[in-house]
Amino acid sequence: MSEPRRDSNWWGWGDPTVHPQLDAAALSVLRERIGGLEAWPLTRSLEDFGLPAAEPLPPSLAAAAGAGNVFASNEDRLRHASGRGYVDLARMRAGALEAAPDAVVMPADVEALRQVLDACASEGIAVVPFGGGTSVVGGVEPLRGAHQRLISLDLGALRAVAVDQRSLTASLGAGLRGPEAETALAREGLTLGHFPQSFEYATIGGFAATRSAGQASSGYGRFDSLVTSVRLLTPVGDIQTGETPHTAAGPALRELVIGSEGVLGVIPEVTVRVRPAPAARRYEAWIAESFEAGAEIVRALAQGPGLPDVVRVSDEEETQGSLALSGPRGTAGRLFDGYLGLRKRRGGSLMIVGLEGDEESVARRRALTVRALRSGGAAYLGQAAGRSWEHGRYQGPYLRDTLMGMGAMVETLETSHTWSRLGELHDAVSAAIHGSLEGQGTPALVFCHLSHAYPDGASLYFTFIARSRHGAELEQWREVKGAACEAIVACGATITHHHAVGRDHAPYMAAEVGETGLEVLRAVKAQLDPAGIMNPGKLLP
Amino acid sequence: MSEPRRDSNWWGWGDPTVHPQLDAAALSVLRERIGGLEAWPLTRSLEDFGLPAAEPLPPSLAAAAGAGNVFASNEDRLRHASGRGYVDLARMRAGALEAAPDAVVMPADVEALRQVLDACASEGIAVVPFGGGTSVVGGVEPLRGAHQRLISLDLGALRAVAVDQRSLTASLGAGLRGPEAETALAREGLTLGHFPQSFEYATIGGFAATRSAGQASSGYGRFDSLVTSVRLLTPVGDIQTGETPHTAAGPALRELVIGSEGVLGVIPEVTVRVRPAPAARRYEAWIAESFEAGAEIVRALAQGPGLPDVVRVSDEEETQGSLALSGPRGTAGRLFDGYLGLRKRRGGSLMIVGLEGDEESVARRRALTVRALRSGGAAYLGQAAGRSWEHGRYQGPYLRDTLMGMGAMVETLETSHTWSRLGELHDAVSAAIHGSLEGQGTPALVFCHLSHAYPDGASLYFTFIARSRHGAELEQWREVKGAACEAIVACGATITHHHAVGRDHAPYMAAEVGETGLEVLRAVKAQLDPAGIMNPGKLLP
Repeated sequence: MSEPRRDSNWWGWGDPTVHPQLDAAALSVLRERIGGLEAWPLTRSLEDFGLPAAEPLPPSLAAAAGAGNVFASNEDRLRHASGRGYVDLARMRAGALEAAPDAVVMPADVEALRQVLDACASEGIAVVPFGGGTSVVGGVEPLRGAHQRLISLDLGALRAVAVDQRSLTASLGAGLRGPEAETALAREGLTLGHFPQSFEYATIGGFAATRSAGQASSGYGRFDSLVTSVRLLTPVGDIQTGETPHTAAGPALRELVIGSEGVLGVIPEVTVRVRPAPAARRYEAWIAESFEAGAEIVRALAQGPGLPDVVRVSDEEETQGSLALSGPRGTAGRLFDGYLGLRKRRGGSLMIVGLEGDEESVARRRALTVRALRSGGAAYLGQAAGRSWEHGRYQGPYLRDTLMGMGAMVETLETSHTWSRLGELHDAVSAAIHGSLEGQGTPALVFCHLSHAYPDGASLYFTFIARSRHGAELEQWREVKGAACEAIVACGATITHHHAVGRDHAPYMAAEVGETGLEVLRAVKAQLDPAGIMNPGKLLP
Repeated sequence: MSEPRRDSNWWGWGDPTVHPQLDAAALSVLRERIGGLEAWPLTRSLEDFGLPAAEPLPPSLAAAAGAGNVFASNEDRLRHASGRGYVDLARMRAGALEAAPDAVVMPADVEALRQVLDACASEGIAVVPFGGGTSVVGGVEPLRGAHQRLISLDLGALRAVAVDQRSLTASLGAGLRGPEAETALAREGLTLGHFPQSFEYATIGGFAATRSAGQASSGYGRFDSLVTSVRLLTPVGDIQTGETPHTAAGPALRELVIGSEGVLGVIPEVTVRVRPAPAARRYEAWIAESFEAGAEIVRALAQGPGLPDVVRVSDEEETQGSLALSGPRGTAGRLFDGYLGLRKRRGGSLMIVGLEGDEESVARRRALTVRALRSGGAAYLGQAAGRSWEHGRYQGPYLRDTLMGMGAMVETLETSHTWSRLGELHDAVSAAIHGSLEGQGTPALVFCHLSHAYPDGASLYFTFIARSRHGAELEQWREVKGAACEAIVACGATITHHHAVGRDHAPYMAAEVGETGLEVLRAVKAQLDPAGIMNPGKLLP
């Protein structure tokens, strides 16, 4: 029998023992740029955290789940009541939630999962599928829709791994966290290569349900491109897409299931392409003359044969700001300052380049990459700064908790566009965020980096930090989030490159797919989930 | 004003002046293996070909299409009454068709196309979208479903080309034939790189609607993977997917439109990734010790960094048979015989390897490829045989006409599976075809080659030739086609890797996507095409 995980920080990110601090230089940059902060402490402990009373659930549900697989403690309900976006964490600090699941149900296997879904369908109980609970767009928010009762369906017991060495595929249970999947694959000399910032706590099922992209997805491929087949359990029946490398048999149902965010059904397992674990890894930093120059280098790489597995370009504001905030870990910062001193100028855009594979492949692709970097005017900063980025790649969310505790709003959002319109998109979104927060009297640091390069374009990832409007944190967030989303939509860009839609982006789905497109998605949902029990209020406005 | 194309052979493939003949050696192999043939001549000319009378169409349709854009001659109706599969060509030889469109409607632009669809929706007229008319699975068969009237909607006037050099994308009109698109792109130094055997007559819209794969798709990518965005005009409204390199905003509607085979709506244009036209090309032939050994070499290449743009392995039967039939063009055959003589053995599997790109990329990837070939025990046959394959790559359908005229059935089908089950699939399908045709008293040559390699598997392409059962040609075909499809389904493989579903594979869609999957596709169709006017009888059983 499995129990829901209770190992992560209940009010913030990840390991509860990790609390990075900012050094004096970082604090001074913050004060200068966003003003003095007023601490924003937690108001409740786990034990006295306020949750609405649970509605009673029918015995048929417990019977379906199997003995001991229904959990209704305050802690388990709280841990399944929200994701890890800014809105979620702000509510945690406030010490009360308006909504929580009536219970956490954790089926032991796919058979039990099928039974639980059937029981929920016949009883009209809303179901929120729950993997790692790391959504930053409200993807696991316990919204009941038209239903009186709601469960969080924890997939944590589904952790089977089956490898086909000959075809280099692996069937992975939805409940495996990133490191669990990688550990199992490493035993067979393999890797999946999917490393989103949430890697340590997010799950395989969540990667599929949200079209996750990892930091090395330029090389290994986005999660959706790694999936060879997927299973979906819906209230009316199961879908299992074919385990063949490709089919031309009509529209791709696999691509309807991937990205369905729990609104059509539950993904219990996914079959993915894997590859030999890399024998060699090389991460290094470069400095481009400007964000535009760095983007041009990445475009050349993405349109040629030598795109690195990881390639990122920070804009000037992120380059300066994130180095200043990187504190005691700031090897990159010291190198960068050294470089700037050498060149007797300010500015420039930090680039991170990562190559993984066999020695020969890394060497060959590095030669191509270096050629493009040099001909684009970039200068080498060395491997230390690259490794520093690599080692700190999962640390961002911890720093967010630190900053929030100091009284800051910290939020991220991401989009993508073609190379032709990427500069316009960068400027428009950056201006919208700056404008909204300045207008609210809380001027912001707005960082952006380009990552996930494709032959036809790339994604942009924005991070912004401002003084919290205490007592009006969610209003402040709604205003700036709305301004950024409107700017994205006005540019014809996508509302999300890899964070998914959830609750936060649902209002923009009509702009994203059009009214006819929305009606198609609604028709699919009506077919598979006629009672509307699956993850109400997400994805579809 | 445009007119429907009338430049191709009305009763067979392509250029009406091309009629390859078999030499004496080829004839002797045929006689030995499948028995003596009895000629199967055409029974009608274009002028006296029998078509059912056309139902009158309402004036609103002509008004919607615009003056001069409705064509109702016997020739135009005949040219739009079928595709280019064996069944279609057998009916042509019989000289009468049971079904033909009541008219061919050719809208001048997307606006007119929208008007035509609206008129058909309000009048309840069935619509068969028509691009190149090269379907080999009955994709353009004029089936009326519940409707009294039917038009062929010829997209030949939609031939706009708009290139974004910076993003390396091109928006291409659905009616462009393969060479037209390549010529337009070549003017800008670009290529799409999509070369299916039907390339010279098939169209961009058809490539998208059927999930086409080309002979160089291992390198350039299948057509579906080249599409960045697509437009679909449906009876209830339009869908335009976003022109961003990637989005995580829910299920991928693009992947619902691609492969929809006209049953959801009409694709007027597609935006695709393009790339610089290759400066270097190198095609060469190798001989592997066996089909299994050749497949293992391709697996190693596909799972490593150096997969060629084209890679094919013929099984032993195809190697022997196709070389024997290649007649006066048989450079490969002579080389192969020379090689076999040298090695004093029979057998072996012919491999074709093609590399395209800049000189450096071709040289580098050739080195990787040669290493894999040699370590897999293959021997080099030279570039002449490779070029011979390349030059003859679009000739297969002409040879089919020749063989049919001599009294043979010639049919092809294709599937794909994981590397783990590819050998089993090969043997099962080959045995099913042999068994069915032997059982009918018409023993067959059954050729197979592996192509379209992926890290997790590959496609298999079967060609079979047998004596026609005169007077029972379609019965003979139904029996063998059914036997092959049942064998594919029993192996858990896909019913089609790139020929699509059309009329012929629709009965196997339940096996392919399951009952719940089928209901999803039906729900999408009901949403977009409530009256069921779009391409009745295709894709969905």
